[in-house]
Amino acid sequence: MYCVIMAGGSGTRFWPLSREKKPKQFLTIFGKRSLIQSTLMRFKPIVNWEDIYVVAKKTQEEEIKKHILEVPQENLLFEPFGKNTAPCIGLAAIVIQKKDPDGIMIVSPADHLVKKEAVFRRTVDAAVKLAGEKEGLVTIGISPDRPATGYGYIQVDERIDLINKTEVFSVKTFAEKPNLATAQRFLESGDFFWNSGIFIFQVSVFLKTLEEFLPDLYESLLEIQSHFGKSDYEEALQRVYKQIRGISIDYGVMEKAKNVYLVKGNFAWNDLGGWEQMHKLSPKDKNGNFTSGNIILLDTKNSYVHASGGVVAVLGLEDVVVVQEKGAILVCKRERGEEVKQIVELLKRQKLSKYI
Amino acid sequence: MYCVIMAGGSGTRFWPLSREKKPKQFLTIFGKRSLIQSTLMRFKPIVNWEDIYVVAKKTQEEEIKKHILEVPQENLLFEPFGKNTAPCIGLAAIVIQKKDPDGIMIVSPADHLVKKEAVFRRTVDAAVKLAGEKEGLVTIGISPDRPATGYGYIQVDERIDLINKTEVFSVKTFAEKPNLATAQRFLESGDFFWNSGIFIFQVSVFLKTLEEFLPDLYESLLEIQSHFGKSDYEEALQRVYKQIRGISIDYGVMEKAKNVYLVKGNFAWNDLGGWEQMHKLSPKDKNGNFTSGNIILLDTKNSYVHASGGVVAVLGLEDVVVVQEKGAILVCKRERGEEVKQIVELLKRQKLSKYI
Repeated sequence: MYCVIMAGGSGTRFWPLSREKKPKQFLTIFGKRSLIQSTLMRFKPIVNWEDIYVVAKKTQEEEIKKHILEVPQENLLFEPFGKNTAPCIGLAAIVIQKKDPDGIMIVSPADHLVKKEAVFRRTVDAAVKLAGEKEGLVTIGISPDRPATGYGYIQVDERIDLINKTEVFSVKTFAEKPNLATAQRFLESGDFFWNSGIFIFQVSVFLKTLEEFLPDLYESLLEIQSHFGKSDYEEALQRVYKQIRGISIDYGVMEKAKNVYLVKGNFAWNDLGGWEQMHKLSPKDKNGNFTSGNIILLDTKNSYVHASGGVVAVLGLEDVVVVQEKGAILVCKRERGEEVKQIVELLKRQKLSKYI
Repeated sequence: MYCVIMAGGSGTRFWPLSREKKPKQFLTIFGKRSLIQSTLMRFKPIVNWEDIYVVAKKTQEEEIKKHILEVPQENLLFEPFGKNTAPCIGLAAIVIQKKDPDGIMIVSPADHLVKKEAVFRRTVDAAVKLAGEKEGLVTIGISPDRPATGYGYIQVDERIDLINKTEVFSVKTFAEKPNLATAQRFLESGDFFWNSGIFIFQVSVFLKTLEEFLPDLYESLLEIQSHFGKSDYEEALQRVYKQIRGISIDYGVMEKAKNVYLVKGNFAWNDLGGWEQMHKLSPKDKNGNFTSGNIILLDTKNSYVHASGGVVAVLGLEDVVVVQEKGAILVCKRERGEEVKQIVELLKRQKLSKYI
């Protein structure tokens, strides 16, 4: 059993707290550990340190080494460019294949929040069992409690099993992030789950599926594999990655494959998709305000206010996010938090890249 | 003819742009000069440099010397403590009395904004003429164009003269800052003017009025005067000032005196009482936004956004003030700008005095 942590994200949703060189997975938001460290600790009771792989971007090399705890250095895999999740998982798969072609990979994002870890482990155990028995591609789905528009959804077909008190379904279809009306319909239907981004499958099964639906990527990975341990590996990796088409595992593989299953995750899960979620999950005072740093609030409600240094004063506002971090300040309506990435785009265009 | 610039203010309405050590009069907000320098330049065509006096607080000594242009150093008068306007003007009066007891003093705040300076000069000329002829206390009143609640008002009686195309009235009463309903009534009545804080009178007339209505202050000033040029002057000034009761010229003198007149100022005038006024007077883009510094705005309207360093991004807000200056950030609803002084109070109480 192997674990693959996808840590190459460069999300801009928490700008200016997260920056190009310090994306979300490296932030210490809740508790004392960074999100990637919390993720590693979550898998520690399931997988041995030496069987945990972390895939990151080459540009993150310096930062990520501070966060991998006891994961062996040689299990750190670097992509020269981010090409979305399918190539990322593919790279890990061809590495693990060399060691154990019939091994089972548990693939997970590095930057999500999970509570009820015992339930999480039970769910993963069920998924691992299922992936072995069915030789299928297994996802973990989360029951939606609101019509979220920020998540992908998975529609299930029929319940086929109950493993470790965990419900198991065959999958009907994957759906991209919906608009509000569609999300409402999904919520009411009862057969749609949030796509947690966690996948479980045998290495061989995944690579066979990749060969079928993304043959170009499969060929590219084989070429990379042929350079393992050779002096020209880095060069070959760079050359091949340049030509790889960026594509997600959801769109490129899971939506097309037939043998896809979903286990229902009953743990608390949040992808920390933006400031709205951050405010929701953070401790708040009786006025609904989260504060950190030197903050003065006057007649201010339901807001998220953070100052890394100096002082921030807010007067007469509701539902806002005010974040001061390293020379950059964000002031935004809380519900508009998902548009923060547009600010990062504008900073790039206006030659203010040093603040991204 | 003498000019007395009251420069001892420590206003907190423009926090964090204005700070305890750099109050409003020292800010370079419009154009290249600080507000006090603009004020001095406004009086330059009326009064010789050596007849201009500047009264400031002792703690502002270092800063004010950078702003007095060609005013002689010996015309800089320092109060050991701020005791409101009556003692401030009284101190200048006893200094000028030694030089020219029948001289006319034009007293002005240091930090107001005036446009149409030719009209301003014509108005002051009329006031000076009137103060000499009537041996009265003359104020300059501004016709209100809105029911402002941030100004004191002066109600006039009848129009008694027209000097230099400038209407002159006898004064009925002074009114403190009104609430909105009262301000509306004042505006509709047509016989209320804004109190510009500019006063014109003969030194002797003012001191006689002071002796009548504020005899304690008058005695204190005489005691200070008796130490002029002596080695114990500073010590005496300190001792006497400690005992002086802080009181405004409006409340302590003008409201009680009989021989009070108002000349109507047809120049554009603004006391820059807070962020609302600042936004009103600043150049704005087609969305009604003023920006200075590195600013990114997305779907933001009618706001005032200033960054002294770094970058400030605002997303999805209207009618806000966002000001970043030397380690402090203010985010407030524009119409609530007058409450900013409460923030300064809170900073004091929370041991964050270094930000005030």
